[in-house]
Amino acid sequence: MNRSLDGIFRPKSIAVIGASTNKGTIGREILHNLIENEFNGKVFPVNPKAEVIHSIKCYSTILDIPDIVDLAIIIVPRDQVKGIMEQCGEKGVRGVVVITSGFKETGEEGAKKEQELLEVARKYDMRMVGPNCFGVLNTDPAYSMNATFSKTAPLRGNVGFMSQSGALGEAILDYANKLNLGFSMFASVGNKADISGNDLLRYWHDDPYTELILLYLENFGNPRRFTKIARGITREKPIIAVKAGRTAAGARAISSHTGVLAGLDVGTDALFDQCGVIRVTSVDELFDIAIALTHQPLPKGDRIAIITNAGGPGILATDAVVSLGMTMARFEHRTLEYLKEKLPPIASINNPIDVVAAGGPGSYAVAMEAVLSDDNVDGVIVVFVPPVVVDHRAVIKAIVEMIEKHKNNKTVLGCFMGAPDGIAGTEEMIKHKIPIYTFPESAAKALWAMARYKKWIERPQGKTVEFEVNKDTVLKILDSNTREGRDLIIGKEAMEILRAYGVGAAQLIKVRTLADLKKAASKLGFPLAMKIDDPGISHKSDVGGVAVDIRDQGELENAFKEMKRKFGGPGGKFSGVIVQEMIKGVETIIGMQHDPNFGPLMMFGLGGIYVEVMKDVTFKINPLTDYDAEEMIKSIKGYPLLTGFRGSEPVDIKTLEETLLRLSQLSSDFPIIDSFDINPFIVIGKTGRSKAVDARFILRTGN
Amino acid sequence: MNRSLDGIFRPKSIAVIGASTNKGTIGREILHNLIENEFNGKVFPVNPKAEVIHSIKCYSTILDIPDIVDLAIIIVPRDQVKGIMEQCGEKGVRGVVVITSGFKETGEEGAKKEQELLEVARKYDMRMVGPNCFGVLNTDPAYSMNATFSKTAPLRGNVGFMSQSGALGEAILDYANKLNLGFSMFASVGNKADISGNDLLRYWHDDPYTELILLYLENFGNPRRFTKIARGITREKPIIAVKAGRTAAGARAISSHTGVLAGLDVGTDALFDQCGVIRVTSVDELFDIAIALTHQPLPKGDRIAIITNAGGPGILATDAVVSLGMTMARFEHRTLEYLKEKLPPIASINNPIDVVAAGGPGSYAVAMEAVLSDDNVDGVIVVFVPPVVVDHRAVIKAIVEMIEKHKNNKTVLGCFMGAPDGIAGTEEMIKHKIPIYTFPESAAKALWAMARYKKWIERPQGKTVEFEVNKDTVLKILDSNTREGRDLIIGKEAMEILRAYGVGAAQLIKVRTLADLKKAASKLGFPLAMKIDDPGISHKSDVGGVAVDIRDQGELENAFKEMKRKFGGPGGKFSGVIVQEMIKGVETIIGMQHDPNFGPLMMFGLGGIYVEVMKDVTFKINPLTDYDAEEMIKSIKGYPLLTGFRGSEPVDIKTLEETLLRLSQLSSDFPIIDSFDINPFIVIGKTGRSKAVDARFILRTGN
Repeated sequence: MNRSLDGIFRPKSIAVIGASTNKGTIGREILHNLIENEFNGKVFPVNPKAEVIHSIKCYSTILDIPDIVDLAIIIVPRDQVKGIMEQCGEKGVRGVVVITSGFKETGEEGAKKEQELLEVARKYDMRMVGPNCFGVLNTDPAYSMNATFSKTAPLRGNVGFMSQSGALGEAILDYANKLNLGFSMFASVGNKADISGNDLLRYWHDDPYTELILLYLENFGNPRRFTKIARGITREKPIIAVKAGRTAAGARAISSHTGVLAGLDVGTDALFDQCGVIRVTSVDELFDIAIALTHQPLPKGDRIAIITNAGGPGILATDAVVSLGMTMARFEHRTLEYLKEKLPPIASINNPIDVVAAGGPGSYAVAMEAVLSDDNVDGVIVVFVPPVVVDHRAVIKAIVEMIEKHKNNKTVLGCFMGAPDGIAGTEEMIKHKIPIYTFPESAAKALWAMARYKKWIERPQGKTVEFEVNKDTVLKILDSNTREGRDLIIGKEAMEILRAYGVGAAQLIKVRTLADLKKAASKLGFPLAMKIDDPGISHKSDVGGVAVDIRDQGELENAFKEMKRKFGGPGGKFSGVIVQEMIKGVETIIGMQHDPNFGPLMMFGLGGIYVEVMKDVTFKINPLTDYDAEEMIKSIKGYPLLTGFRGSEPVDIKTLEETLLRLSQLSSDFPIIDSFDINPFIVIGKTGRSKAVDARFILRTGN
Repeated sequence: MNRSLDGIFRPKSIAVIGASTNKGTIGREILHNLIENEFNGKVFPVNPKAEVIHSIKCYSTILDIPDIVDLAIIIVPRDQVKGIMEQCGEKGVRGVVVITSGFKETGEEGAKKEQELLEVARKYDMRMVGPNCFGVLNTDPAYSMNATFSKTAPLRGNVGFMSQSGALGEAILDYANKLNLGFSMFASVGNKADISGNDLLRYWHDDPYTELILLYLENFGNPRRFTKIARGITREKPIIAVKAGRTAAGARAISSHTGVLAGLDVGTDALFDQCGVIRVTSVDELFDIAIALTHQPLPKGDRIAIITNAGGPGILATDAVVSLGMTMARFEHRTLEYLKEKLPPIASINNPIDVVAAGGPGSYAVAMEAVLSDDNVDGVIVVFVPPVVVDHRAVIKAIVEMIEKHKNNKTVLGCFMGAPDGIAGTEEMIKHKIPIYTFPESAAKALWAMARYKKWIERPQGKTVEFEVNKDTVLKILDSNTREGRDLIIGKEAMEILRAYGVGAAQLIKVRTLADLKKAASKLGFPLAMKIDDPGISHKSDVGGVAVDIRDQGELENAFKEMKRKFGGPGGKFSGVIVQEMIKGVETIIGMQHDPNFGPLMMFGLGGIYVEVMKDVTFKINPLTDYDAEEMIKSIKGYPLLTGFRGSEPVDIKTLEETLLRLSQLSSDFPIIDSFDINPFIVIGKTGRSKAVDARFILRTGN
């Protein structure tokens, strides 16, 4: 078992330094919370100006405390924190939680002071939460520690919650209580000077009481470590995350095509996706899903049954299920027979089952029995809108009994609408861990997340493949370019890089004269394509710098003359053209953009207009596994164009996958490559004959 | 003023027929609600088995009541309703509300009985709400009528609410109360036998107390009337609707391309869009937006400022604003100067303004002053996460005062998070009509809806254009087809229909022999396209039945021989090919599918792969205005391909618009056309030279 943070979360004695009796101060609230929650250990207030606080003997400094102190909570003014931490170190404290703010979040000076705290912590081998945080808590009765200044006493439960925002701490604890969601541990990590989200993930991975991890993130300290850690956890415990700041990345200046498309926070999406973290966009969604995950078994699939006593909410639930991409279960024949026999004729027996307003406990029992016995059903949403004449308690009892009878064999979520003072009897549902939502959309979203998580668990792990490549050739090309201060590699050299890594690349020949043109054509054979060879022109087709599908010598010469006329300078100066084999197939784009947080982000999509206008592309973080490559290709909207659309030949998907993996390897091998676009990479049906037609690599420059 | 439903909503005396003293019965609850809410008029309980109910003299039948009765609420068993209504008619009652259920919603017999009620109502010139409903209410103190069996007493306000679901009635009233949202009138319309949503819309259009209309709909009685009525209202009063059943339409068997794409409830979306109704997907969204619309002025645009005292929620709000397509306001220079001068240096002065946790009333006042004075700001979200040390009341007072000082010149919404017992002082916000949300996403969504509505109000109305066309030609073609029992019109005839309506259509010539082929080519000129002419083959290119870009006689003959080889039957039998002029341009698709609810649904999109794989199409309900046509073209994702993408020539959009309008006219003129696909309609740069290359019309058949 991982004990790395025991000094923080499993102390036997706590000093509250900066404790105070003044109501409304943080120093008072934390002390109060520790005592009120009956921390299972000793609490020592520390404050040189008081003799006793909250009826407890108060010490001038931590050094005056005669007992061993495991954890210190520090709430003194900013400039005293360092000195206090020195004392903690001397005292042999194992963990400190620095509530005080005014550090990195305020600018350079604060950052320096924060660094000093970190150094003290390292010197004495103490772990530190904060500074600038809301505190920590552990509901395990062996500790029963609420070292936060929250006004809400959290419930015990199996959720580990990490919040990067202190301000959200109170809101989160309050909201969770209202929803009856309990925590195993909670930590507001503040500036994350020492203890980061990654540390908590590893700690909670091993904590027997934590079954689900919730994260509120604003940024990643070390996303690559996060990926590794999260991947290890999510097959055992689900992680749900709100990552704020979806739209912040847009501002960076970006030079590659892939980079422009990657602007909108796709890195985070890719990251979460690749390590099985469920991403949600708001705090209420986070909790809606958390409650379902902690209280109900995972559904085997996404075939949902809905039971309702009111048409409208039943339709709303159906809409939500279908629009989230789940399936409305098709009942087995015997289910329909059973429902037909047992429900009154006015009821609707197809999914959604509508027992109508008159449907009481008997009808609900029948419907529940039916869907819980049906092998075509994976999850159930029970909608109940209490009519005046029906006994709520009896209905709820019937629902609960059926779930017990079937031993919680399927995921069941309640959606109870209306009734001004709440619906009598819902405590029975809560007691039996059946989550209740006010709106059908929330229940559907929770089921969706559970089904998705289930799929993740069952997804093959995928493996990284190592190809034999010609690394030296690439090294030489990159070296010669950097030596000469060039950061853009195009044309022949770009193609050579690809070939060195076993990626198909079209033959091309540089041509300046009509005589060369003839030779090139006879070497490459028709049809041919021709491009103006001028690094100054980046979107060549915009200016008529590209001619394609040249079928014979006549067309070739005309195209050449036209280029010369258009782009030739005064006095017959002409930079020449590139002639290359014309490959007819489906245009794709493969790209990479180095993300400052996530490292190389690989992109795949259909080329040309699909990428430019339709933005039909997908991203994953490097390195790719074979399964990742397969998924990337399958996930684009235009995938049917690759599998043979309207009579066209299906392309060689295997080679495409391999190409992605080889380029993934290239990206890992040469971090100096900041980005590349292979646009287009043309895929055809013939095995192994798909080829890059144009490629550009951009290297990272000196500063 | 519209008085059509005064008998229902503005009665001076009400009979409750089926009134009862038994708690838990509807007959007791309605009587109780009328009295409890102090209905401003006389209430007469009617029940043959009682002498007095609820301390009020009870009558055996309505005929025994000595006074005039305006409205009767009927709660008797189903089979007595008709007789009771006869008595109401004799008594001269003007309106009845039939709560009793068991009518159309239960099947054929019930439907028959419902029809009988309607006949009684018509006979006596009474208006009827229901049957199978939850009741009606009018909060105007002149009436103060709560004729529902709700347990929640609704607040007075300016919202008219129509619910098609009775079951949702209670839930809606309860939820509205919690949100402090008041109603002018409320009606649960049940089976809509007589009074429909459309009637209520017209009634509330003229009601001076109703400023906003909310609808919960499950189906449309008469969508074309709805369109007309709603369009007339939405420029004066906003309408927000939840339309349940988004996904129900998918099941219909559909033969046209347009029809398949139209499967997913696009009709409702198009309908709401074209008449300015704001569509939401859930009841909570409905209320989030309603509160903002009733309490705050409309924003001038969508440039939003965010003020926060906590980083996390500020980022979440920013994310929500941006991901809804709104703009984060760029502050004026003087605003930044002002903020820099007046806020402590630790605060962040760029949008979102972060006054940090220590920021009290002073900081909020400064930030509010700044954004409310800034001409670049249209709407404001004020986030407040109450820290322990700040006086909530003072902050709220500062916010409210600034809004008053600036005379409500901008839309301001609050997002207050946390605090277990609510945040002290929020009643001050509510009093000043500043909506408060728990999560930033809800506030952003409300602002988004308001900005969208504002845009609708300012949108040009658009007008329907009438073109001179050759109706007779079309009539003849359709007649001859229906006479001969053909319901599919393709090829030459389809093109003739288009030409008769002034829509460009490619020349095509049917060819069976090599000799004909030569003649056709010399008539049409190269390049040419060739298609196998066999009505049995619907996706010709899938089977190699299409050859394009044929450049000379040699290629032409080869293509012909190939077709003959592929598709010719035994013994040289060959149905021939169509040769037609090859038009190079951008492929679009224009289609129409007759929707059983909405009539002709017009579709536009990019053709070929864009429609088949990318589904990049848009729908509107016929008839189109000129503005509609313009909007359709602009709204597709691939629009840049029409305006000149990467050096290609911009196409003639004017002709495209006109083509849509001409086809809209065709669809209106000939309801017998069930659907058509013009696929592709090729648009080019040259004015008026864009042309349909292939078209198929499907006619409605006899049964």
